[in-house]
Amino acid sequence: MLDHEYSPPANRVIIALKEKGVAFVSKQEDLPNKKSSLLLEMNPVHKQIPVLIHNGKPICESLIIVEYIDEVWNDKSPLLPTDPHDRAHSKFWADYIDKKIYTSARPVLTTKGETQAAAMKELISSLKILDAELGDKPYFGGKTFGITDIALVPLYSRFYTLEKFGNLKMNEECPKLVAWGERCLERESVSTTLHNQYETYDFMLEIWKKLVVE
Amino acid sequence: MLDHEYSPPANRVIIALKEKGVAFVSKQEDLPNKKSSLLLEMNPVHKQIPVLIHNGKPICESLIIVEYIDEVWNDKSPLLPTDPHDRAHSKFWADYIDKKIYTSARPVLTTKGETQAAAMKELISSLKILDAELGDKPYFGGKTFGITDIALVPLYSRFYTLEKFGNLKMNEECPKLVAWGERCLERESVSTTLHNQYETYDFMLEIWKKLVVE
Repeated sequence: MLDHEYSPPANRVIIALKEKGVAFVSKQEDLPNKKSSLLLEMNPVHKQIPVLIHNGKPICESLIIVEYIDEVWNDKSPLLPTDPHDRAHSKFWADYIDKKIYTSARPVLTTKGETQAAAMKELISSLKILDAELGDKPYFGGKTFGITDIALVPLYSRFYTLEKFGNLKMNEECPKLVAWGERCLERESVSTTLHNQYETYDFMLEIWKKLVVE
Repeated sequence: MLDHEYSPPANRVIIALKEKGVAFVSKQEDLPNKKSSLLLEMNPVHKQIPVLIHNGKPICESLIIVEYIDEVWNDKSPLLPTDPHDRAHSKFWADYIDKKIYTSARPVLTTKGETQAAAMKELISSLKILDAELGDKPYFGGKTFGITDIALVPLYSRFYTLEKFGNLKMNEECPKLVAWGERCLERESVSTTLHNQYETYDFMLEIWKKLVVE
């Protein structure tokens, strides 16, 4: 598994493997300094982590990897529902998280001033849609922790960073999501994978300073 | 099925339904003038076509719909392989087509000058990667027409438009893809869904004039 401890897409894959109880070796990539020759060989198209190498063959793109893990280790902890409509519904929200949440989280964490404020406004507005979709369910798919939760939960470790960068309170903006994030952290798969919110803030602040001050 | 005859994502869904021999009703949306109240009700998040309405419930996002169709009508014409690694491989390339091909095709068809030329250069470079991936196989998945073919083939009806806009010859840039496009057009599902390249050019030129001249 070609990995980076602070990469949300890589975190997704690790959490899925742990949910399934699959033993794995994590090889940390030295991003953004130098991409390993193994990474360039295993993902020549995008040259990005995560890459799951299984039976010597690479699988790329985090949500595709999570579906692969669910199909190969199908004897426990289903990550997607079996009903086709419920499956499509889960995939829709996981895709929404890629298209709307991570896309607007990136400029929040890498720009300043008006650009950052506009991205923050869009991000909060997109998160409120997720807050409403979650509603009073324990997890996005209902009672079972699944692909939509896995897609979003790495962002939960950045909620404190968003509060500091945006001067807002996440439990006022998205109370259901905050309760859900704490619920996810009760799972060993999540708590042993994600850094806590303060470590994550220190890490994000260093990156932000390098990108924005220069 | 909430549809538009010149929308590549909508074309994908129609082709998948025809491959499966599923009867359906297409409701053409009057884009971009006015979105129907049914569209706003069925896809309130993205407010975009295509939407497949099946048993009264909406399924959104074209590749997710194609996977849904494959799961529900699983008795004939598989659109994804059964082996998990092969499935992940097909999904990877379908996802690549969304992220790299359609993303750079849009500015080619809606801008001019240097912006258009840069987008064209990126698009051709991304298409060459697909040309190499296809190689001498009849279809992307091998002998069977599947989700990657369905993802890309609506763009084939825009190849003539790309030639005119970019002053190039697609059969010189991507000879395997051109042969593959003609092979796909031998399928009734494709030939009865896509407009021919000249009609598509007229349609794209009208849009381009409206967007770029104003």
